[in-house]
Amino acid sequence: MDIRTIELKKTILEDNDKDADLLREQLKETRTFYVNVMSSPGSGKTTTLVSTIKLLMNPTDGKQPLKVGVMEADIDSDVDAHTIANETGAASVQLHTGGMCHLDAEMSRQGLREIGYEDLDLVFLENVGNLVCPAEFDTGAHAKAVILSVPEGDDKPLKYPLMFEEADVVLVTKIDAMEAFDFDPDRFRKNLAGCNPDAPVFFLSGVTGEGVAEWAEWLRDKVENFLDNR
Amino acid sequence: MDIRTIELKKTILEDNDKDADLLREQLKETRTFYVNVMSSPGSGKTTTLVSTIKLLMNPTDGKQPLKVGVMEADIDSDVDAHTIANETGAASVQLHTGGMCHLDAEMSRQGLREIGYEDLDLVFLENVGNLVCPAEFDTGAHAKAVILSVPEGDDKPLKYPLMFEEADVVLVTKIDAMEAFDFDPDRFRKNLAGCNPDAPVFFLSGVTGEGVAEWAEWLRDKVENFLDNR
Repeated sequence: MDIRTIELKKTILEDNDKDADLLREQLKETRTFYVNVMSSPGSGKTTTLVSTIKLLMNPTDGKQPLKVGVMEADIDSDVDAHTIANETGAASVQLHTGGMCHLDAEMSRQGLREIGYEDLDLVFLENVGNLVCPAEFDTGAHAKAVILSVPEGDDKPLKYPLMFEEADVVLVTKIDAMEAFDFDPDRFRKNLAGCNPDAPVFFLSGVTGEGVAEWAEWLRDKVENFLDNR
Repeated sequence: MDIRTIELKKTILEDNDKDADLLREQLKETRTFYVNVMSSPGSGKTTTLVSTIKLLMNPTDGKQPLKVGVMEADIDSDVDAHTIANETGAASVQLHTGGMCHLDAEMSRQGLREIGYEDLDLVFLENVGNLVCPAEFDTGAHAKAVILSVPEGDDKPLKYPLMFEEADVVLVTKIDAMEAFDFDPDRFRKNLAGCNPDAPVFFLSGVTGEGVAEWAEWLRDKVENFLDNR
């Protein structure tokens, strides 16, 4: 599948927060739910999106298939956009940040325009792999999902508190490796509660598929609520 | 052990590169070799430093023990400085970046002053866990070590090229998990060669201890060369 690659223009914006609010409103008009997915490098963002999108696009339980798009942000390379497009058939564009460590609302808008968001129910942004900077910039998304992989350790909310504080939902991936890496789910929940006591947490395995259906169902509810109440 | 924590002051510096060169020269006068260790969150920086420092401080082969210090940079928390101090007895300070995603030369200098670098042969900076921003800022270090853990995947040099381009040495950690995570060392070397064909690569396991002695020996050579040729 051919993947379009967009070299993002740097935005020097007076007020990104205001622009992000504006983008959120604009996306309501086209009934497009926008999710910002953030994590460290190599935590399983792409793998998680592939399995999630398959369930949302091809539900087996009689539910409505969702029209899904993915914007893959990367400093360089277009590995992930190809993977998403080939494995799910979802609309996919690659965003090159030109060395920048995060996306803001106007950069999101550049990508959304290219992907044709008007015709989509749900667009994911796979943000640059970085637990620091992306937490500081509102992209205009309706929800923020933070992924933490088991090998990174259960202490990460202590060390990157803003990222976990900003999360509307937390996905813990690679749980099949939990024993090998001494990751304690209770200790993780306790560490997370220190900065964000309310975010739901889903534990996922890309190997066994565990947890993916529950998280996809949670997300589908969010999207359907959005479509009903926009 | 009591750990000093330093809240770093933000530096608004005209020319960080020039200041970094100056710091490198100053450290030559006190015979202090300075190493900047960079990686993603949770890649095993602290574990690697603990085992490396033990070998450098307490060599079993009749070599000179090195006097070692560690500056642990973190947005928040002082988990790592305690670990280093308790497990190795090395001089250790915690640097809080106050939300900043990287360190520059003047921030390094604030930490070096606190740790008493004049009396040390070797000081490590454990930079903020981030594969993007720290690559862009010269801290004044004499060498840059980049750590990649196996669960992050062998494609990371394609996605974070500047970080791997900047590396003087690359440490691949958690190699005991190689099979579970489909990490191919040859594919990694090929991906790395695209941006940095010359950097030596060491493969380490914190579980079995494999590779640590070889990497510690490489580093000892660098330090001894520096002390001879300053």
